Amino acid sequence: GVSKCTRPAGAGLSPDSPVNLDQGDPTMFEEYWRKNKESCDVVIGGSELMSYFSNPHIMCWYLLPELEDSIRRLHSLVGNVSTEGRHIIVGNGSTQLLQATLYALSADSPQPVSVVCAAPYYSCYPELADLLKSGLYKWEGDAYDFDKEGPYIELVTSPNNPDGSIRGPVVNRGDGKVVYDLAYYWPQYTAITHQLDHDLMLFTFSKSTGHAGSRIGWAIVKDEKVARKMLKFMEVMSIGVSKEAQFRAAKILGAICDGYEGFRPIDTENFFEYSKRLMIERWERLREVVNQSEIFSLPKFSQEYCLFSSEFTETHPSFAWLKCKEELKDAQSVLRGQKILARSGTKFGVDPTFARVSMVSREDVFNAFLERLSAPKGAVSNGNQA
Amino acid sequence: GVSKCTRPAGAGLSPDSPVNLDQGDPTMFEEYWRKNKESCDVVIGGSELMSYFSNPHIMCWYLLPELEDSIRRLHSLVGNVSTEGRHIIVGNGSTQLLQATLYALSADSPQPVSVVCAAPYYSCYPELADLLKSGLYKWEGDAYDFDKEGPYIELVTSPNNPDGSIRGPVVNRGDGKVVYDLAYYWPQYTAITHQLDHDLMLFTFSKSTGHAGSRIGWAIVKDEKVARKMLKFMEVMSIGVSKEAQFRAAKILGAICDGYEGFRPIDTENFFEYSKRLMIERWERLREVVNQSEIFSLPKFSQEYCLFSSEFTETHPSFAWLKCKEELKDAQSVLRGQKILARSGTKFGVDPTFARVSMVSREDVFNAFLERLSAPKGAVSNGNQA
Repeated sequence: GVSKCTRPAGAGLSPDSPVNLDQGDPTMFEEYWRKNKESCDVVIGGSELMSYFSNPHIMCWYLLPELEDSIRRLHSLVGNVSTEGRHIIVGNGSTQLLQATLYALSADSPQPVSVVCAAPYYSCYPELADLLKSGLYKWEGDAYDFDKEGPYIELVTSPNNPDGSIRGPVVNRGDGKVVYDLAYYWPQYTAITHQLDHDLMLFTFSKSTGHAGSRIGWAIVKDEKVARKMLKFMEVMSIGVSKEAQFRAAKILGAICDGYEGFRPIDTENFFEYSKRLMIERWERLREVVNQSEIFSLPKFSQEYCLFSSEFTETHPSFAWLKCKEELKDAQSVLRGQKILARSGTKFGVDPTFARVSMVSREDVFNAFLERLSAPKGAVSNGNQA
Repeated sequence: GVSKCTRPAGAGLSPDSPVNLDQGDPTMFEEYWRKNKESCDVVIGGSELMSYFSNPHIMCWYLLPELEDSIRRLHSLVGNVSTEGRHIIVGNGSTQLLQATLYALSADSPQPVSVVCAAPYYSCYPELADLLKSGLYKWEGDAYDFDKEGPYIELVTSPNNPDGSIRGPVVNRGDGKVVYDLAYYWPQYTAITHQLDHDLMLFTFSKSTGHAGSRIGWAIVKDEKVARKMLKFMEVMSIGVSKEAQFRAAKILGAICDGYEGFRPIDTENFFEYSKRLMIERWERLREVVNQSEIFSLPKFSQEYCLFSSEFTETHPSFAWLKCKEELKDAQSVLRGQKILARSGTKFGVDPTFARVSMVSREDVFNAFLERLSAPKGAVSNGNQA
């Protein structure tokens, strides 16, 4: 059947059907883009964007110059990472780029390179590394348990999927490379505390603005040799990336910047303020329900100073990482009993007392989630046996 | 540097710069779409196509229903293949889908599956099969030389890239699977002699209409288990395919069908008549120059009855497969001497007396190609030493 990474959220919602929050389909942001449609419509003529090439004179020859501009402009506005003097490589989602980094960082190695990530780690990493049984790299699980000799690649997701924690590498050996998956390092999810400057950083249009359907991700790469190898991967695997998706991403990322630079009527809200406000509201409502239910607990986050918003704020992750009381044991089953589809902790390399639930669904789905989560305890126990 | 599969054609054309016909960037069709722009413009609002999902209730959950409709409608109109009762899986170009088929046909095998194709074979196949050193499958070269025991996958490209020949499988053993790459099985390139009905057939938007920048390919798959495994590959590798690209492909493939179904003013030409006329013209001009030059020869094609156009026609391939006289030995070098960048026969598994040249560039580039090819023989010899 369809992989766990990719099932629909909120499809066919009715009192009897489960609320599907297994994936993180970021449809909560649709409303914002509906209200701001004039600035974001794209029109593409039948004869436009037909060539394989965007700019044959630059390294990433399929990258539309306007997308590269918008990406650099947005990072400069938000201040989350430095793009100065870095290469930008665009991919079919950061998913494809993550594989491009594994290839780029292992292609010259005489032995298969170990791929690790501290648990709880993003549930798609193991399959992504091992699907094709590559002789170049191999998934070796939790970085905390890693003690194999030889070269390794450590994936650092920060804020982390599933638990929202801010992370750094944990192996810290000389023969290792670190890839930073920064999908959630945006002001709506967390405080922008530093302008990060790592060798290899991944971002995605899906999580920054909610446009998951476009399949646009980008890598910010310091080393030219690594960038060229990633590009080689992109050429062989898919001969680049859809121009239509790039064109639209350029427009939408640019529109966010335009808003902050005064091109927008002052009575409308800019994107990161709007989306941060919504994330805060959802987290407040969730914490209230969770506190009353006495079945689950949630991670706690400290207040940090955000350089972008110039205020103290805590992390409001894209996922709720629910831990249930020990005697209940299986968080995913408990939630299923409440007609909520979540992803079990076992998929993230930890025990089943944890489960991950998307916080970025459409409003009606989120409301149904809270309603079912706050159902009386008796209903829960019955449901648990179903 | 940039892979040979992907360098630009005709970029920065000047008398001194080479005419780059190494790739098959199908920009010759731009003119048609420029003239028919009203029917093919797409408009996408900022809040549209945001979800990962298109239709959670069908197997290929990211496939836009309108694209599936257009694909089935176009095949039904042209009569080149049967889609009745088949699964349609869309990918980031047929390149990505070819890898999905290798995965799907090898994932259950206890040993690495051999991948073969009769030479001359498409130059990207070997790298595509071997880039990640998969333990599931391995490139084993020319199908004519294949004598290894065990399971194998034979790639059959028809009409063939590079030489335009109509092909069938050559290994024909019981433990083999055949994948048909039918990128060029369209009326502008060749006679539609049969409605093909193979288990696994690949097509691409790039070659059917010229929209290479969209990176849309599709597979027509008989076996549900194979289709599900291909889908698994698509989910893990890129979580589907850009919705913008799918939306536009649906519109453009649909517009071609509309034209034939009488929705178009009668004084404008339908797509396949237009593109076939252009291919015939280009091939006539090329054959004239080649006959006069006495340096090269071209493949000859027989007349076949085309079920689509109801007339006899010969193949007019997307590439010219030039063979030079024995004493010159290296066709790519001879062409380079004439400031024409071609791809050597060695890349296609044959000897360097052959070279492949794109026939589908923009008009000015094609004209420059013929002009340089018809330069006096003395100039050629000098050039050959450069």
